[in-house]
Amino acid sequence: MERQIYLENRAWQEGLALMMDKLAERCVPKNEFVDVRSALHRITGTIIRAKRSSPHFAASAMDGYAIRARDTHGISEREPRWLELGVQAIQVDTGDPIPEGMDAVVMIEEVLELSERGILLQSPVVPWNHVRPVGEDIVEGEVLLPIHHRIRPQDQGALLAAGVLEVEVRVKPRVGIMPTGDEIRPPEAALQVGDIVDSNSTVLASLVEEWGGTATVSPIIPDQPKLLEEAILKMAASEDILIIIAGSSQGRDDYTAQMVQKFGTLYSHGVAIKPGKPVVLGEVQGKPAIGIPGYPVSAYLTAHLFLEPWVKHLQGLSRDSQASLDTVISKKVFSSLGSEEFVRVKVGRVGERWVAAPLSRGAGVTMSLVRADGILRVPRLQEGFHEGETVPVELLRPVSELEDTLVCIGSHDLTLDVLSSHMKARGGQGGIASAHVGSLAGILSLRKGEAHCAGIHLLDPETGEYNRSYLQRFLPGREVALLNLVYRTQVLIVPKGNPLNIKTLEDLVKPGVRFINRQGGSGTRVLLDYLLQKQGINQGEILGYDREEFTHLAIAVAVASGAADVGLGIQSAAEALGLDYVLVGEERYDLAIPREYLDEPRMKAMISVVQSKAFQEDVLALGGYDVRETGKFLV
Amino acid sequence: MERQIYLENRAWQEGLALMMDKLAERCVPKNEFVDVRSALHRITGTIIRAKRSSPHFAASAMDGYAIRARDTHGISEREPRWLELGVQAIQVDTGDPIPEGMDAVVMIEEVLELSERGILLQSPVVPWNHVRPVGEDIVEGEVLLPIHHRIRPQDQGALLAAGVLEVEVRVKPRVGIMPTGDEIRPPEAALQVGDIVDSNSTVLASLVEEWGGTATVSPIIPDQPKLLEEAILKMAASEDILIIIAGSSQGRDDYTAQMVQKFGTLYSHGVAIKPGKPVVLGEVQGKPAIGIPGYPVSAYLTAHLFLEPWVKHLQGLSRDSQASLDTVISKKVFSSLGSEEFVRVKVGRVGERWVAAPLSRGAGVTMSLVRADGILRVPRLQEGFHEGETVPVELLRPVSELEDTLVCIGSHDLTLDVLSSHMKARGGQGGIASAHVGSLAGILSLRKGEAHCAGIHLLDPETGEYNRSYLQRFLPGREVALLNLVYRTQVLIVPKGNPLNIKTLEDLVKPGVRFINRQGGSGTRVLLDYLLQKQGINQGEILGYDREEFTHLAIAVAVASGAADVGLGIQSAAEALGLDYVLVGEERYDLAIPREYLDEPRMKAMISVVQSKAFQEDVLALGGYDVRETGKFLV
Repeated sequence: MERQIYLENRAWQEGLALMMDKLAERCVPKNEFVDVRSALHRITGTIIRAKRSSPHFAASAMDGYAIRARDTHGISEREPRWLELGVQAIQVDTGDPIPEGMDAVVMIEEVLELSERGILLQSPVVPWNHVRPVGEDIVEGEVLLPIHHRIRPQDQGALLAAGVLEVEVRVKPRVGIMPTGDEIRPPEAALQVGDIVDSNSTVLASLVEEWGGTATVSPIIPDQPKLLEEAILKMAASEDILIIIAGSSQGRDDYTAQMVQKFGTLYSHGVAIKPGKPVVLGEVQGKPAIGIPGYPVSAYLTAHLFLEPWVKHLQGLSRDSQASLDTVISKKVFSSLGSEEFVRVKVGRVGERWVAAPLSRGAGVTMSLVRADGILRVPRLQEGFHEGETVPVELLRPVSELEDTLVCIGSHDLTLDVLSSHMKARGGQGGIASAHVGSLAGILSLRKGEAHCAGIHLLDPETGEYNRSYLQRFLPGREVALLNLVYRTQVLIVPKGNPLNIKTLEDLVKPGVRFINRQGGSGTRVLLDYLLQKQGINQGEILGYDREEFTHLAIAVAVASGAADVGLGIQSAAEALGLDYVLVGEERYDLAIPREYLDEPRMKAMISVVQSKAFQEDVLALGGYDVRETGKFLV
Repeated sequence: MERQIYLENRAWQEGLALMMDKLAERCVPKNEFVDVRSALHRITGTIIRAKRSSPHFAASAMDGYAIRARDTHGISEREPRWLELGVQAIQVDTGDPIPEGMDAVVMIEEVLELSERGILLQSPVVPWNHVRPVGEDIVEGEVLLPIHHRIRPQDQGALLAAGVLEVEVRVKPRVGIMPTGDEIRPPEAALQVGDIVDSNSTVLASLVEEWGGTATVSPIIPDQPKLLEEAILKMAASEDILIIIAGSSQGRDDYTAQMVQKFGTLYSHGVAIKPGKPVVLGEVQGKPAIGIPGYPVSAYLTAHLFLEPWVKHLQGLSRDSQASLDTVISKKVFSSLGSEEFVRVKVGRVGERWVAAPLSRGAGVTMSLVRADGILRVPRLQEGFHEGETVPVELLRPVSELEDTLVCIGSHDLTLDVLSSHMKARGGQGGIASAHVGSLAGILSLRKGEAHCAGIHLLDPETGEYNRSYLQRFLPGREVALLNLVYRTQVLIVPKGNPLNIKTLEDLVKPGVRFINRQGGSGTRVLLDYLLQKQGINQGEILGYDREEFTHLAIAVAVASGAADVGLGIQSAAEALGLDYVLVGEERYDLAIPREYLDEPRMKAMISVVQSKAFQEDVLALGGYDVRETGKFLV
């Protein structure tokens, strides 16, 4: 296969429109009848009308007696009248049918006397008094549900009451999903170096399900034209829409494009989006065929842009308009001209403002989709957004959940995850949205009003004390509380068995020792620099001093994978990966909370969790933490 | 069974709190492991951590050559250097593992020359250049998902990438639903007079499914203590929550209460809500047991108030906060002191205001739940709301759909349903929300700014012309367009075969002929009164002139069911129910649209549908309509 270097570069909307133009009239929704009792969330395929009225008989609305209204003409307090039981008055309960010939009900409370003679009334009754007429609720022939309506529980109730047992709904569009690539392995396989897990098939199948379709996933297809050919033709025979997921390496989309061209028509190869550029659009045997790039983020986004409209179209629906929110961008977003870029962002409400913080932009970073609260679109002909610009974000989580979320930007600590889970365990929707940028950057976020709190552990080399002096320096004049979260142990993380026999910081400059560092501005970096200076060790002599990672776990993984021999990080990170470590010292990790947020309900909820015994016990179980001042406000 | 007349009258929140206090600690969420591929929408039962890093090997991020960075020390444009192929430089594609001993990648574009000798480089390369390190996306041990998180498609992707094949989630709470009552019949039964269809079981089972639980519905249990006893004990053995739905007549809840008391503990019988007052709260064998009233609206509301919190509690979740919207009440709402009342309302945005119009309040009116856009709560200690008051409404439909909806208040015509369906068929979300109050009340709604258009057919007795003069009288000085929807035939609707041989309006005063009338202010009523006056017929002599219905279909049903012998209505209503009819005359039915709404996109979309051939063909198929001016603006 030759690599077709120059992909097309049309706007994605144009690519989709081209495909719709060619195929939409041939691919139309189909209907089927299903039992109403299993029709929840199905889409009506026609107007649904009542087959019978409800109530289907005139019924008493009260406990009392059914009578003929004309038998009460002329009755008054002065001239009460007896109605003969069983002839002129028949006892009925609520819901009972009105007996033949009767046309009104008197409530039992309105009967003056009751004896063998009958009932004594003292006021006349109008016809249809306390009678629920036929069709009071539903009239035969009446429209119950419009076309293209998603059936809800209460709709099922109305259908059954109206005698509709089978309802005409859209057939669920069938989507055939074909993962391809020699290096792609099913999730249960033991992975070798070079293998990639097929997670895309599951993600796409679940999206199809959410959109109202049903997915069939083929076994993973190796890079052999014959096998892909067989799979495509088999899927084209049974499915409504074909999805071919390309393998992980560049240029694999060419292969899909060639296959689509061979068995059908290729409409477009490549659109001007990032990520997701090499998407393939075409048809095979009259079915929409979409080649989805293999990088997880690209797969997710292109499925939304190109697959969702087809799954909706085959149900007669338009794409749902995504809830969107105007947010202030917390840091400058660069984007290249010519491509519409989809940036994943975290969203939080701090004070009166909604703030969006961009997440990692790699197409392979699955977790950016998990962590994202929304998607920010940078238009094709724009080079990005300035910090502080107000832009709309399409939301991936409900606003009520975001409203409830505390935004915590600063240093990374494993207990923040525990804290968030404890908050959710108490029934809070939101928990904590934390961004790991280091202690100093966290304080700057507080200054810019982008966070409710910042996790910090900044040693003042002059005084040997933690945190307070940094707040005074960077947030002068602001009242900021310091809530102690933990004391934690910083260690030199080394491989199991400590093969290079590292004992002290001085060992970092030994020849052949490869160090891995934390980023500038992180508390751990500040601590390292402080200790190096104190012990007179030259940074420049440490091999790898310039290699930076952003979290303790990333340091531990670098050591565990052999990419480095040693790194400075917290003890719990070493323990999480079963590594050995050398004690360096203890440090204080606080949450810095500006005064104005202390009284917010979600902040109070967090403080109460930090002060709870259950939280502190879970923290101790991680190892490497001390909770002697956890939950205390420190001066 | 004796009727316990005095139900308790505590606030529903108190009843729920009492039940939670007694049971919440004994009824706790349970966990199970499920395959990640079928875990969509399940709720995590613990913190979920990564079992392996992703990528799990250092991989090339580019197509090029893997090298050792230190082999490039000192290289410059003046001193380029050859690296030996296969020894110092190994060809890699994107995603390929970095070969043992190598620590950087040079892109193919950076290679100056390529020959059998190797590759020629002219600048040094730093370690880890173009290498995706182990754990770039996910680090082993890292928290992937918090507890109490509803798993989304992208979460499944991250779990699989992180080596998590089985995920620990909440067991779906099991709800046992027991419909009871001698008069209750399964939906497929042929109904006799007095029978009631069991629609509640399906509605409740679907609600349970939406809330994340799973429902088991027992066969309908007749009113025999022994049988209910057996059913309750059987359900208590296998289910987590027990629901007993009372039959349709009053006092049936006593029966449930007695059973709960017999096998467990009765906490509360009756709460201060309307509808839904006779709800029963208790426990049987440590399981929450809830007696749900049989009226459909009561059943739906009490399930939301008392069942949803338990289904959520057993998953560790709090009840979702319902999206709510501030709306202006379009007409006064009365409510009795002492009960919290739940009023179903239609909601629409007209101009800048959101308007809520109360729907029918009967507990048996299933369609009020289908038509409702939201629920308005009238607090216990308040007697209602004034017209024009601004009050919050809990939404049952997404705001985007409501935004897209045209509010049409006025006279009833069957073609409005067809119109709404055509709008939805074109992919619009909203369609038309129509309220049937009669032509004059529709014009008043336009005056109050509560509707975008009003369907009217008002004959001016002075001029014999339609509609315009009424607009001049009731909306003086406002520019209002009249869009003709149809001309329609008004008929005297009579039973099949016309047994009373009714030929003209004069036959309405014949002895024994029972008439059914439309409400005052409806165009049909205006027409009737005009014709009666012209022909010198005395209203007072017509039996049933005072019996009023609000729609044409209701008139037809009254005739079809024998509740009346004749009524005036549109021909299509008679045809819908297979009745006979006598022609009375043709009338013009227009949509009155204030100038300021004509340019709204949703209004433009509606006008374009009215003018379309497809819509007009569907109208003609109903019978009794003429479309000669349909879609024309009339002066």
